[in-house]
Amino acid sequence: MDQTVQTDTPDDTPSFGAGHTNSTDLRRIRSNPDFWYPVAWSKELKAGKTIGTRYAGTPIALVRPTEGTVFALEDRCAHRQVPLSKGKVCGQSVQCCYHGWAYGRSGRCIDVPYLGKGKLPNGVRTFPCREQDGLIFIFPGDPDKADTVPLPPRLARVGDPAYKTRFFGQEVKCHYSFMHENLMDMNHQFMHMKQMGQMRPRFLGQKREPGLVEAQYSFARTSGKQPLGEALIFGERRDSSEKFQHRDVMTIRTEYPYQTLRIQTGDEDPVMDLWIVYVPQDAEELTNRTFGLLSVKRPKVPGVLELAWPFLVAFTERIFAEDREIVELEQNAWRELGGDHNVEVFPVINALRALLAECGVSEPAVNA
Amino acid sequence: MDQTVQTDTPDDTPSFGAGHTNSTDLRRIRSNPDFWYPVAWSKELKAGKTIGTRYAGTPIALVRPTEGTVFALEDRCAHRQVPLSKGKVCGQSVQCCYHGWAYGRSGRCIDVPYLGKGKLPNGVRTFPCREQDGLIFIFPGDPDKADTVPLPPRLARVGDPAYKTRFFGQEVKCHYSFMHENLMDMNHQFMHMKQMGQMRPRFLGQKREPGLVEAQYSFARTSGKQPLGEALIFGERRDSSEKFQHRDVMTIRTEYPYQTLRIQTGDEDPVMDLWIVYVPQDAEELTNRTFGLLSVKRPKVPGVLELAWPFLVAFTERIFAEDREIVELEQNAWRELGGDHNVEVFPVINALRALLAECGVSEPAVNA
Amino acid sequence: MDQTVQTDTPDDTPSFGAGHTNSTDLRRIRSNPDFWYPVAWSKELKAGKTIGTRYAGTPIALVRPTEGTVFALEDRCAHRQVPLSKGKVCGQSVQCCYHGWAYGRSGRCIDVPYLGKGKLPNGVRTFPCREQDGLIFIFPGDPDKADTVPLPPRLARVGDPAYKTRFFGQEVKCHYSFMHENLMDMNHQFMHMKQMGQMRPRFLGQKREPGLVEAQYSFARTSGKQPLGEALIFGERRDSSEKFQHRDVMTIRTEYPYQTLRIQTGDEDPVMDLWIVYVPQDAEELTNRTFGLLSVKRPKVPGVLELAWPFLVAFTERIFAEDREIVELEQNAWRELGGDHNVEVFPVINALRALLAECGVSEPAVNA
Repeated sequence: MDQTVQTDTPDDTPSFGAGHTNSTDLRRIRSNPDFWYPVAWSKELKAGKTIGTRYAGTPIALVRPTEGTVFALEDRCAHRQVPLSKGKVCGQSVQCCYHGWAYGRSGRCIDVPYLGKGKLPNGVRTFPCREQDGLIFIFPGDPDKADTVPLPPRLARVGDPAYKTRFFGQEVKCHYSFMHENLMDMNHQFMHMKQMGQMRPRFLGQKREPGLVEAQYSFARTSGKQPLGEALIFGERRDSSEKFQHRDVMTIRTEYPYQTLRIQTGDEDPVMDLWIVYVPQDAEELTNRTFGLLSVKRPKVPGVLELAWPFLVAFTERIFAEDREIVELEQNAWRELGGDHNVEVFPVINALRALLAECGVSEPAVNA
Repeated sequence: MDQTVQTDTPDDTPSFGAGHTNSTDLRRIRSNPDFWYPVAWSKELKAGKTIGTRYAGTPIALVRPTEGTVFALEDRCAHRQVPLSKGKVCGQSVQCCYHGWAYGRSGRCIDVPYLGKGKLPNGVRTFPCREQDGLIFIFPGDPDKADTVPLPPRLARVGDPAYKTRFFGQEVKCHYSFMHENLMDMNHQFMHMKQMGQMRPRFLGQKREPGLVEAQYSFARTSGKQPLGEALIFGERRDSSEKFQHRDVMTIRTEYPYQTLRIQTGDEDPVMDLWIVYVPQDAEELTNRTFGLLSVKRPKVPGVLELAWPFLVAFTERIFAEDREIVELEQNAWRELGGDHNVEVFPVINALRALLAECGVSEPAVNA
Repeated sequence: MDQTVQTDTPDDTPSFGAGHTNSTDLRRIRSNPDFWYPVAWSKELKAGKTIGTRYAGTPIALVRPTEGTVFALEDRCAHRQVPLSKGKVCGQSVQCCYHGWAYGRSGRCIDVPYLGKGKLPNGVRTFPCREQDGLIFIFPGDPDKADTVPLPPRLARVGDPAYKTRFFGQEVKCHYSFMHENLMDMNHQFMHMKQMGQMRPRFLGQKREPGLVEAQYSFARTSGKQPLGEALIFGERRDSSEKFQHRDVMTIRTEYPYQTLRIQTGDEDPVMDLWIVYVPQDAEELTNRTFGLLSVKRPKVPGVLELAWPFLVAFTERIFAEDREIVELEQNAWRELGGDHNVEVFPVINALRALLAECGVSEPAVNA
């Protein structure tokens, strides 16, 4: 069988060399704020402290009182707009570092030390806030929708004793859409050849549902040995001579705005389960902070995964560094060319691009 | 008596949460050039040398001939606009480093080494220039007004043997108005709690005259011990148990474009006398260079102040570092929000804002 | 005889103080792409490798197969615009590092690893490319003109055993026109006084032909000793007492877009022969990369030049550092003033400015 990917239907035939003639540039599509976005790791925010974080140009102060749940305020004092996250947590309120104005959980100003209580000014905006699986999420959009939009029920396999989970991430200087495309197009495995050896992906098919695009692949090693880091993730060594080629299936799904990648054999539990999201940082959304949870199934021999963990960490860091470099180069090219000139020939990526454009927001950013 | 500050009259009632609805943004008001501004410390400019400095985007070459007073030229050669301050001082002239064009005290071009004397091109702009109390001042506005606009008669207590004076300053990345507001609103003492302990300011009243706003405060220590650095400035230790609370009066005055802060008890000479000015650097005036003179009264025991001086320097540096951080954060917020969103509730600060808007210039910068 | 330069004719009388009233600003004139420009040193590009370089904002991938000549492609993969110069050279093609798309010498896409051969997308732009005297040239303009526009027949004296040649250069943050003016106006020798002692240039005359401006000078040392570095270049020591003053003639020529400087005595071979070009890097052409070849005639005693070479290198580096600083200050002034305010009084420089404006392109840059 020919292993080259064929477009699914004649309708999918790309118009080569013409570039996208869409009226909207995908890299100008803003993320839809009516979803839950992680803005910090739980461990970043100690009890009785506040930290500053961002979503799409909006500064956010996260506050963890010594008692009670985390809450989130716009990170600008109503008085002179300096960050509340530079302030002090007092009970269920945070006090601005500059002149001591204090705000409660509801965002209301509850004290100005040098002003009568009857004259208190208005407060600051708040954001619905939840904490789950080691992440602090906010709901930056319409607060009335927060209760009806669910958080993902489970992030990777956090909390499952059969798995060990790595928390990772960093700021990447590109639009979030480049990240989704990078992960879903497994033909980019070519780029990781030095890390992973020559692997040939076979595209098995795609699925498109409202809010969702999914791609499935199998792999065949065409030369070289499987590296240790990869072996740890995939659960066993396989050589190019083996008959087990193409046994494992990799499923990559963008379920807006999150992305997952699972590797599994038949109906068994996945050997690897990744949950990842790319949270826009600046108002133009041309940088993102990545929050990733990578769960690896524990082998039968206890302790092996713990021993090998540093190798797995180093391996994934190298892969991620290569991905970061290339997506930032894509963003640079976009800036220089003044827009998106991609000529995409892979149908699942065109489906993904359509999904991101439909689910996102095409109006300009407030502060852009 | 209630120590919270009440607005003076019903007319002063702030409109909370609405922000300023002025047609002009205070951070876009340019400094009035028809005043004397320091642009360098005297000690920065050695005899026979020239240095480059700035006022509001205009580069200025200060020249100190080996004989005679300092003079000031626009710091761009008429030929190819390179800085004259890179050149050589020859007698009463400065010679451009590039092709040797020479300019006299009047700004006239007096020599082009490869051109006949009859064909000399026009020269460069000059600025009235004076030197006083360790500072070099220029008059950047209409030169005809320079003689009628007085320099401050005395900067702090420079030259008074009863005082020791510290010269300090640096570049701060904000509009000068943030600096004036920072110093005059003593409620920001809250921010210096780590340095100064818990002090509660009591606002005693304000004065408004043409070109002038003044605020008076007394202080009560509400907890903690007086730090050494502060004791040196205030002249003696006072604890919260003492009856002397609120005995000292702090007077902060903006007498456009300068600012002073004095601490005194009754009619005695002040224990501290500060003179400070914030000179815009760039054409948009969103950075300033601060020139401050802080005079501290010598205690009766000779030599004590000299011994303690390093502590006083370190103390004031820490205070100034905190102030600089917060005003730069204000400027950042202004940039991100695209304008001033301050909701000021303190009447004296609103008076100060009105003063700075009235005395300044609202036209756009020449090179902006 | 008066050594000051007189303007040649009354028509040349400059209008002092008025600045240029040309409708076009010389610093906005783009370089004419219909010439051969060096974009890399030969030694930068190893066999079987590719490197990324630039001309006026256009990224260029140079590819040197293990067999055959260098070729040049636009440095953006047709797929996702990432640099091909990050890719792999395979035979006579280069393969993009991201998803493995491959391009041949003609720029045609010859392989997409996951796509049928019948469906290959369009390729990338190519540039005529030649290699000569240690430099790799491209022809960024109309490819049809490449064959009729000659490369300079010889760069300085590369390959001539009677000379030793230094290859030098770096990025300079200014428009290329500042570089031409700097070198041609030898009155700027004033700036190098510390390096070269007091030398007085005498302007001997100028020549203007289509595409060419030439200036000739002689020099007299007015004080100080000749430094070693200079003596090496000029071939012998001369003191101010000597009768040989003004014996050597320096000829500086801009033959668009290149520049040369030769020093010779009578009809003898030049003691020094410099070829230099300033290649715009960014789309606005406000930075350039300088490629210079400096050939120095070998003295009669063999080995002397090799021994002294490090001194010559250090001497020319200091000169070049001074030049770079001043032209970057000129560019800064241009930015601050929002345009060119030069008041040029030297006729040959005005002729040079006219040449650069005529030969260049006044339309705006594509990506500006």
